[in-house]
Amino acid sequence: MPLDPSWISEVVPHMGAAFSLKTTRLLDEVQSPFQKIGVYATEHWGNLLVIDDAFMLTSLENFVYHEMISHPALFTHADPKHVVIIGGGDCGTLREALKHPCVERVTQIDIDEQVTRMAEKWFPELCDSNDDPRADLRFDDGIKYMREAADGSADIIIVDSTDPIGPGEGLFGPAFIADCFRVLRAGGIMVSQSESPFYHMDVLKNVHRAMLQAGFADRRSLLFPQPVYPGGSITCTLARKGEGLDGFRSEDAAAKGFPTRYYNAGIHQGALTPPEFVREALENL
Amino acid sequence: MPLDPSWISEVVPHMGAAFSLKTTRLLDEVQSPFQKIGVYATEHWGNLLVIDDAFMLTSLENFVYHEMISHPALFTHADPKHVVIIGGGDCGTLREALKHPCVERVTQIDIDEQVTRMAEKWFPELCDSNDDPRADLRFDDGIKYMREAADGSADIIIVDSTDPIGPGEGLFGPAFIADCFRVLRAGGIMVSQSESPFYHMDVLKNVHRAMLQAGFADRRSLLFPQPVYPGGSITCTLARKGEGLDGFRSEDAAAKGFPTRYYNAGIHQGALTPPEFVREALENL
Repeated sequence: MPLDPSWISEVVPHMGAAFSLKTTRLLDEVQSPFQKIGVYATEHWGNLLVIDDAFMLTSLENFVYHEMISHPALFTHADPKHVVIIGGGDCGTLREALKHPCVERVTQIDIDEQVTRMAEKWFPELCDSNDDPRADLRFDDGIKYMREAADGSADIIIVDSTDPIGPGEGLFGPAFIADCFRVLRAGGIMVSQSESPFYHMDVLKNVHRAMLQAGFADRRSLLFPQPVYPGGSITCTLARKGEGLDGFRSEDAAAKGFPTRYYNAGIHQGALTPPEFVREALENL
Repeated sequence: MPLDPSWISEVVPHMGAAFSLKTTRLLDEVQSPFQKIGVYATEHWGNLLVIDDAFMLTSLENFVYHEMISHPALFTHADPKHVVIIGGGDCGTLREALKHPCVERVTQIDIDEQVTRMAEKWFPELCDSNDDPRADLRFDDGIKYMREAADGSADIIIVDSTDPIGPGEGLFGPAFIADCFRVLRAGGIMVSQSESPFYHMDVLKNVHRAMLQAGFADRRSLLFPQPVYPGGSITCTLARKGEGLDGFRSEDAAAKGFPTRYYNAGIHQGALTPPEFVREALENL
């Protein structure tokens, strides 16, 4: 069955792979100063957010990513009060972070206000918590923010970025990761979107190398499904300042008091062990 | 970037989704009495096996599936001596099962000899153990085999099937699953390919229902990446006769004495907890 023009595809040239979704119409499209942002209606996945031809999320499956990039870090830190999100303009990660009552403030810095405006319009469920008094939404350069932020001013830094090309590129670099280390308090945790080990082992290794060089005491890549990315799974990588990442507040996670659709305490524990080929690749950096 | 004719796609119409790989040439194609079997060379994934337009496996990533459909069951059973594989014609699962020195015999029944002939030719690494004296390869109807097999004659039954359409359909049905229960010894384990919860929750629920009705004491679906299936992840479902599935021989798994590339003891433990949306879907059958 050939794909007629109602299908749109994300192609990954270096892997000779593509994932495609059947759309019913283009709902909205803007060219921001940074990137092209499109929203499509699909037949089966709800709305689809596309940035510079890369699939970002759909209504149907974004819960996996948003839960996994937030809750493992938040349930590992003993008492996360100040969370910083770099990127995250769709606001789904912000919503998850604010489910934790111990969180007093979430500062989100996305370079592109248009992503948030599109999310408010087409993914309003992700923006449920944008008016929470603890949410501080800023539209600015996250790299600059981190360079200028005070030492030891954050408990959790979540790097919820696009791919390491275009505006997201610097968020995978050693200078930014070293700034994150400096800005975290002792015991603080950085967590970064770190691509798929099947598609981008080089990215994963570079992120680990930069975290190692920055001085983080422990690092761990969590693998989880990402159904609308070519390759179908992705990692986030956690790094902790001065402490390990084996343990977490498993009792709090088991009695979390808010609903999740992917994350639970067992999933968290299980995700801490990487598959053999990932473990081996990260052994000798 | 449109997909030129060098790309081939697996389309999942009910999800409006497709996964595509760039091929360099068609290496081989046969129409067996049961299905059309094709092998393509790809740019980045090695060879690709396609059956009736569905992607089965590639040289690059088949290790995840073959390890996950075999080792969790084999490291759960206390002393698996006789393993039966239904389907599995590419012989990758057979190879993994035979890595366990306690296994005395693996009887494999695939309805289509042509799948094995194509695997021997284009995926010889999967057929490494076909000449093992413990391997008994038969080409016959797996449903008939199970109907006629003696009560309590197997320790592990691995249902390594294609999708539940075409020749694989009956392998997801209650009559076959009830036969598997009968053929297993006490403590025996059945494990079946059971599709993706993102794409086929109905299949997953039906398999669980049939296992429950057949009398299995415990059931567990393990989710893992399947990079060349649309959706990117898949489950296998374990069911055990007369015993639970929480524990496994974790010390043996940690000291397994043979290499794996995905499976390890932590992955096994982690996979035993399903994501929330899967747990909820399987709660009330």
